[in-house]
Amino acid sequence: MTEMRLVVVGAAGRMGRMLIKAVAETEECRLVGAIERKGSDAVGHDAGLLAGTGLLDVIVTEDPLPVFAQADGVLDFTAPAATTAFAALAAQARIVHVIGTTGLQEPDFTKLEAAARHARIVQSGNMSLGVNLLAGLVRKVAATLGEDFDIEILEMHHRHKVDAPSGTALLLGEAAAEGRKISLKERSVRSRDGHTGARNSGDIGFAALRGGSVVGEHTVMFAAQGERLELFHRAEDRGIFARGAVRAALWAFDKKPGYYTMADVLGLNQL
Amino acid sequence: MTEMRLVVVGAAGRMGRMLIKAVAETEECRLVGAIERKGSDAVGHDAGLLAGTGLLDVIVTEDPLPVFAQADGVLDFTAPAATTAFAALAAQARIVHVIGTTGLQEPDFTKLEAAARHARIVQSGNMSLGVNLLAGLVRKVAATLGEDFDIEILEMHHRHKVDAPSGTALLLGEAAAEGRKISLKERSVRSRDGHTGARNSGDIGFAALRGGSVVGEHTVMFAAQGERLELFHRAEDRGIFARGAVRAALWAFDKKPGYYTMADVLGLNQL
Amino acid sequence: MTEMRLVVVGAAGRMGRMLIKAVAETEECRLVGAIERKGSDAVGHDAGLLAGTGLLDVIVTEDPLPVFAQADGVLDFTAPAATTAFAALAAQARIVHVIGTTGLQEPDFTKLEAAARHARIVQSGNMSLGVNLLAGLVRKVAATLGEDFDIEILEMHHRHKVDAPSGTALLLGEAAAEGRKISLKERSVRSRDGHTGARNSGDIGFAALRGGSVVGEHTVMFAAQGERLELFHRAEDRGIFARGAVRAALWAFDKKPGYYTMADVLGLNQL
Amino acid sequence: MTEMRLVVVGAAGRMGRMLIKAVAETEECRLVGAIERKGSDAVGHDAGLLAGTGLLDVIVTEDPLPVFAQADGVLDFTAPAATTAFAALAAQARIVHVIGTTGLQEPDFTKLEAAARHARIVQSGNMSLGVNLLAGLVRKVAATLGEDFDIEILEMHHRHKVDAPSGTALLLGEAAAEGRKISLKERSVRSRDGHTGARNSGDIGFAALRGGSVVGEHTVMFAAQGERLELFHRAEDRGIFARGAVRAALWAFDKKPGYYTMADVLGLNQL
Repeated sequence: MTEMRLVVVGAAGRMGRMLIKAVAETEECRLVGAIERKGSDAVGHDAGLLAGTGLLDVIVTEDPLPVFAQADGVLDFTAPAATTAFAALAAQARIVHVIGTTGLQEPDFTKLEAAARHARIVQSGNMSLGVNLLAGLVRKVAATLGEDFDIEILEMHHRHKVDAPSGTALLLGEAAAEGRKISLKERSVRSRDGHTGARNSGDIGFAALRGGSVVGEHTVMFAAQGERLELFHRAEDRGIFARGAVRAALWAFDKKPGYYTMADVLGLNQL
Repeated sequence: MTEMRLVVVGAAGRMGRMLIKAVAETEECRLVGAIERKGSDAVGHDAGLLAGTGLLDVIVTEDPLPVFAQADGVLDFTAPAATTAFAALAAQARIVHVIGTTGLQEPDFTKLEAAARHARIVQSGNMSLGVNLLAGLVRKVAATLGEDFDIEILEMHHRHKVDAPSGTALLLGEAAAEGRKISLKERSVRSRDGHTGARNSGDIGFAALRGGSVVGEHTVMFAAQGERLELFHRAEDRGIFARGAVRAALWAFDKKPGYYTMADVLGLNQL
Repeated sequence: MTEMRLVVVGAAGRMGRMLIKAVAETEECRLVGAIERKGSDAVGHDAGLLAGTGLLDVIVTEDPLPVFAQADGVLDFTAPAATTAFAALAAQARIVHVIGTTGLQEPDFTKLEAAARHARIVQSGNMSLGVNLLAGLVRKVAATLGEDFDIEILEMHHRHKVDAPSGTALLLGEAAAEGRKISLKERSVRSRDGHTGARNSGDIGFAALRGGSVVGEHTVMFAAQGERLELFHRAEDRGIFARGAVRAALWAFDKKPGYYTMADVLGLNQL
Repeated sequence: MTEMRLVVVGAAGRMGRMLIKAVAETEECRLVGAIERKGSDAVGHDAGLLAGTGLLDVIVTEDPLPVFAQADGVLDFTAPAATTAFAALAAQARIVHVIGTTGLQEPDFTKLEAAARHARIVQSGNMSLGVNLLAGLVRKVAATLGEDFDIEILEMHHRHKVDAPSGTALLLGEAAAEGRKISLKERSVRSRDGHTGARNSGDIGFAALRGGSVVGEHTVMFAAQGERLELFHRAEDRGIFARGAVRAALWAFDKKPGYYTMADVLGLNQL
């Protein structure tokens, strides 16, 4: 089987270096390019040294076009403006574009969908295999179990996190609401304090813990009279997002142009 | 919709009384008969008083035939010999027969399959919705995730349990092995003590805790580099098995004769 | 060693029957009386039959005085007015009075303290050994670990509970605050939703889950950079409160008159 | 207050670099020396660059004597032979010697005790605050609760670990046995498989899980009829051992010569 040739954009950032490392550690692919924005100190240096993997003989450059032309795919956790530009180039080169960029807005999605006519785009707000699988399981379980099973979603993150519930907790709540065919907005109980009254059947409750250096933990509970089912995910290090992106690229290698998500990569749409 | 008319056999036993209670608490069905073996002290008494639900105006009797003739289904957590006899009668009456009896052997299954030509049989080693759903999820997750996710199965039960791992832990192990298309027998590590060496990729590990009055807790872990997915079930009281049986009966009410499992009842076969 | 002779007041109520059962199951003591309020249907019946333990040859009566006179101790989960009256009688009889009654107000405590000049009173809002021990551990750990360990308190209860956080969660929060010599009121974060900002060092966070039939679960977390300590308690059934009361009575048997708590019984004050 | 001047020995190893980082991140102390064995490549380089903290203006050298002479303490996670030699030098210099070295044997301890007549030695098999605190709690709880609470110890570690139960699990088992005044050796059940029979009252059970990249998780359960207490510790990264060593050094700064453990540092001996 041919090795997949991959490019990392935003190569010198925290996620960029993790992506370089993940590519270097995966047999089925090889790093062939590393891009940074014009003027970055990293330009001209070896991408492997930058990422702490040892020499990879891939020099960080500024111009994506010639690099994309010789690659099979691009890994991208940059920012919306850069990402939509890269998508246009990926479409031109007819390669895979894996997008873990956050903060994408409606106009960005329109551009990505246009690019997806020629590129194979895999885009997701959370590239972890585990969390995407968890969301699929939650949807299925919520569809299977009746309202006699109360749904509660608990998350814990490090002390520096500034909002609650986490985006991933909300994503899991959406999956539960979809499974049950209800509106999360109408049925979510975002916190409890004081005289709350008894729990309403059909509500989806949230609770958030903050402390220490916890990367991310999510539990979805289905609690009924006499029994309880819990689905739990722990992220121990942020490297899982990089590895998820590499897996997405390998999966998309032989696919047709189109707009895919991690659920497609994991075969979770049939769940 | 018509109420389903149900009979409980082995009515005076611990599970029998729980079944009576579960029927009494369910709107869509009604108790119309309660059977005990010949000579039981319970014969002639009201089934509701026996089960602590208050009078139900259903007297415990010894002869199943006339009772089955006026019923839509039978709930049965008795013993193999009794169960195969009841199955023959259920086939004659062309009704539903829900079987939670344990210890069934090959010849028993042959008889049940014969009865299933005319009866609608639902049989399962564990009638809890949660555990059956868990098994389906485990199979799916094991099929989705590669061998870089190590599978470990942990169970805890009360101090009186005499064997390990629990039957349900093994059932979950089988589900994982099926998902991965491996043989549980060849790949299971049933305990760890002393110099074990590093974990072999692809093994399925088991661990058992015993203590207190724990009814039953099972966790299936999928642990990879940097992340972990856990699926967990807790049985708080044995009433869930009775409620699962009632749900199975209601589900089978309008089905064709055949041999079904809780996975069918829960729609988990498509999982 | 002499068996301790115990009386249960409020014998026909849910906790009264649990207390009778707990006494019957404990070797070091014996039931010698069972009291109900005047006019109760239970008067004249055997206390054991009432509690489902089989005959105990102890008839439920209405008049506590002659019964207390022949007893070594009283177990009492009734109501404030009854409890203060019983305390006066226990003082007269110079016996042990174990009080699990909730809702006691300041004037009640004054009466109990007066009675404690002659009676040996053990009073606690939660008679479970585990929870009282947990509170002692939390105080100790909070005193030992610095503010680099973030304290979070999570509780889960059944769907019918109408307030949050639970009284026991607040009791655990108080224990943590005492250990740290801070005011819980000033430093508690009772829920999190929306843009909360980063966690303040020294805060004590609470979170509440509601669902199913959970009797009571409490976790106190101490989360720092790189490590986490969790202390967890699960109540599986309400019988633990009855057994805690019996243990308290046995402990107080040879003590001097005075006002004691479960922390004394468990030797946790030196913790 | 004077800053404590600290030396790290074995400066270029994995734990050495973590120790340098921990010293650099702690206000109350300062790195004044970094020692490596003769011929190491690290000699002559800046200790901070080695550890990834940025320049610290401390050059790695080979000769401990002149460095110890100008220091207040030494942090040492090397090997038994080196450690006993360093202890003799620390005794000469009358400074603090924190020892996290593993594999120490009886003759080594004899040498360390001799050195402790002049040095302040703090030695422990596990320098994490959390685990040492956990051990103290386990001893206390085991002493408080009777044999009706079954003790079970569960641990999980990464897939590369070659033995079970972990050393820390056994240390926790020893703490439980001490609390109960029993012999761990006689009462431990190290694994369960097959027909085990019911649990013996008073046994201490162990179970081990292996998978993924788990740094270390330990749970000690006390399970009784109707309730359960669990004490849990998770190590997320190995830096906690380095930070524990720094805390030990700071604690010992103003102590008299002697042989101390982490329990002394944490004030856990009075627990």
